[in-house]
Amino acid sequence: MEDQSLKPIRCKAAVCRAASEPLIVEEIVVDPPKAYEIRIKIICTSLCHTDVTLWHKVDPAFPRILGHEAYGVVESVGENVEGFAAGDTVVPTFMGQCDSCASCAAEWTNQCTAVPFTMGPGMRRDGTTRFWDGEGKPLSDTVAVTSFSQYTVVDVNQVVKVDTAVPPKIACLLGCCGGTGVGAAWRLAKVQPGSSVVVFGLGSVGLAVVQGAKMCGATKIIGVDLNPNKEEVGKEFGVTDFVNPSQLGDKSVSEVINAMTDGGADYSFECIGISSVMSEAVRSTKSGRGKTIILGVEKDSQPLCLPSFEFLFGKCVMGSLFGGAKPKTDIPILAEKCMNKELELEKLVTHEVGLTEINTAFNLLLQGKSLRCIIWMDK
Amino acid sequence: MEDQSLKPIRCKAAVCRAASEPLIVEEIVVDPPKAYEIRIKIICTSLCHTDVTLWHKVDPAFPRILGHEAYGVVESVGENVEGFAAGDTVVPTFMGQCDSCASCAAEWTNQCTAVPFTMGPGMRRDGTTRFWDGEGKPLSDTVAVTSFSQYTVVDVNQVVKVDTAVPPKIACLLGCCGGTGVGAAWRLAKVQPGSSVVVFGLGSVGLAVVQGAKMCGATKIIGVDLNPNKEEVGKEFGVTDFVNPSQLGDKSVSEVINAMTDGGADYSFECIGISSVMSEAVRSTKSGRGKTIILGVEKDSQPLCLPSFEFLFGKCVMGSLFGGAKPKTDIPILAEKCMNKELELEKLVTHEVGLTEINTAFNLLLQGKSLRCIIWMDK
Repeated sequence: MEDQSLKPIRCKAAVCRAASEPLIVEEIVVDPPKAYEIRIKIICTSLCHTDVTLWHKVDPAFPRILGHEAYGVVESVGENVEGFAAGDTVVPTFMGQCDSCASCAAEWTNQCTAVPFTMGPGMRRDGTTRFWDGEGKPLSDTVAVTSFSQYTVVDVNQVVKVDTAVPPKIACLLGCCGGTGVGAAWRLAKVQPGSSVVVFGLGSVGLAVVQGAKMCGATKIIGVDLNPNKEEVGKEFGVTDFVNPSQLGDKSVSEVINAMTDGGADYSFECIGISSVMSEAVRSTKSGRGKTIILGVEKDSQPLCLPSFEFLFGKCVMGSLFGGAKPKTDIPILAEKCMNKELELEKLVTHEVGLTEINTAFNLLLQGKSLRCIIWMDK
Repeated sequence: MEDQSLKPIRCKAAVCRAASEPLIVEEIVVDPPKAYEIRIKIICTSLCHTDVTLWHKVDPAFPRILGHEAYGVVESVGENVEGFAAGDTVVPTFMGQCDSCASCAAEWTNQCTAVPFTMGPGMRRDGTTRFWDGEGKPLSDTVAVTSFSQYTVVDVNQVVKVDTAVPPKIACLLGCCGGTGVGAAWRLAKVQPGSSVVVFGLGSVGLAVVQGAKMCGATKIIGVDLNPNKEEVGKEFGVTDFVNPSQLGDKSVSEVINAMTDGGADYSFECIGISSVMSEAVRSTKSGRGKTIILGVEKDSQPLCLPSFEFLFGKCVMGSLFGGAKPKTDIPILAEKCMNKELELEKLVTHEVGLTEINTAFNLLLQGKSLRCIIWMDK
């Protein structure tokens, strides 16, 4: 029986034709899913800083469709896809989880080795695109998710089924910033009850870390941000203490943090992407057992330089894609925690626009006015 | 009942009067143990690179007695000491374990917070010395172990009872290099069966890491050393492949390791103490989940500089005193593994001398001729 749905779909997408230029909402063609692939109707997506980074990047992948934090409904499935059917509510993720390889079975890594993460371009299994513009020219994808399109095609390993009761906005956030931030505290750092945590940068990921640390039972959560407005925002998310580095006089942030935490926090998280802040984050942890998690993307490719002696007395610096969380295992758990109000990620949504207004979402983020802006794809 | 043994003891010790000068074997006085302290008759001790580092250090702590890797017999115990009696065979350790604090109860740290590690000088609880020279002048201790003396006094938290059947040389090695090296693979890195490991520097600690990695089931253990003789030595300990950085032409060590391990080793250990080697160690691990353990003490206080981008895709750099092992928990386990021949640490002993020849032990180590030189205290 040939599935009538396995035909190309014409729909709208926000296409980035060249670096840093406004996106253009165009009619495009989305191929049917090949074997092991799922075509998804995107309900909503949101704009992440990584999209902005890729938008600015002078990259041979242009023209491309950005977007990688989204929620949608399965429209059709390709051959060899098991466990998914049209109508399933899903979160596509840039991380895969095959649940068959040794890495997926291991507790200590979230990097599926069967269909490993790459920055692309192209689908994970064959490197080709499923997106074509009105003239039949190929459009590049984004980390094999490509959610600034009304329809997308994603590898079966990168699609997570979520309960239909989960609000679309929450499910969407779990696909990147929510999963990454909460995961970093919960899965990667394994924040212990009663511990102290410092979060550098209270953007969406930083605030999700705050929520994750609170969920894990941290009792002191220090937020660090140059923007004084973040004190109030941070406290809504669970920050117990706020440090503004511009108001410390001669003291460094780490000196102040060390004084506030009896010699250093148990955990620090760098959610900005500045080498010198990463070093300060390491210096802000307790000698003997401090853990620092690097989440920020260093904007100028500066190296992270640390006093090597600090390691001898027991420190740890780590990073991981998606905060060390395994998407198919952890997104449903986190969705439930959101439903139970153990996590309140929906507070990250400060703005909502329709697809035609997607450039507004970029402007809001670039001007620092938004945390997460949800883009509804049918508007 | 007053314990007659709780009087000062006159004995011999190797005293370091000034930085880098030969030690002098002198008659000294060792105080009786105070509350929570144990006086130990040292049977044998061995010379660690850290002793050489402290020997070279221009430090107000001189004159001092070095030594921190040792085995002995309890001579007497102070007030409030439970669980130890004269005649017990023990390993004194620079790390404490009170088994009462939250840190001792936690799986994720080996840093007892009740009587925390310090470089000293002085006993951990009151900062005073138990050692006096022939003129009654105080002699400094070394990390509150001070084993280059026929008798020493150590805090009860820093004394580990070992089975009398454990050979003294093996017990001695477990007090520092054996525990640190094996612990780093076993407790800190948690090396997984079937994994790949690269060890930079095949000195005593590096070779103990090799043994630990082998014990954990690593199937590829790459030794890296500039000394070509280390290839044969390494293979005796469990190295499966050897890389000599001087023989790689235009290629860097990490390029060669990455080619040998399908994109990087699962774990790397830096056991030398050179900043650039530490960076190479991080570059030699697999993107997505590589762990690097820093064990070497950077000789020139150079910072460790790493591409911050590497962390985003999932890498981890860590260090810990005593390889993350808990001395009272882990030394007896490791001793049993040595007895069972799961570990063959005794191969580290290349030389043995009497106390009066202790400067020979220094010369052998400085000339790179020895791995571990055991110093027998009654000779």
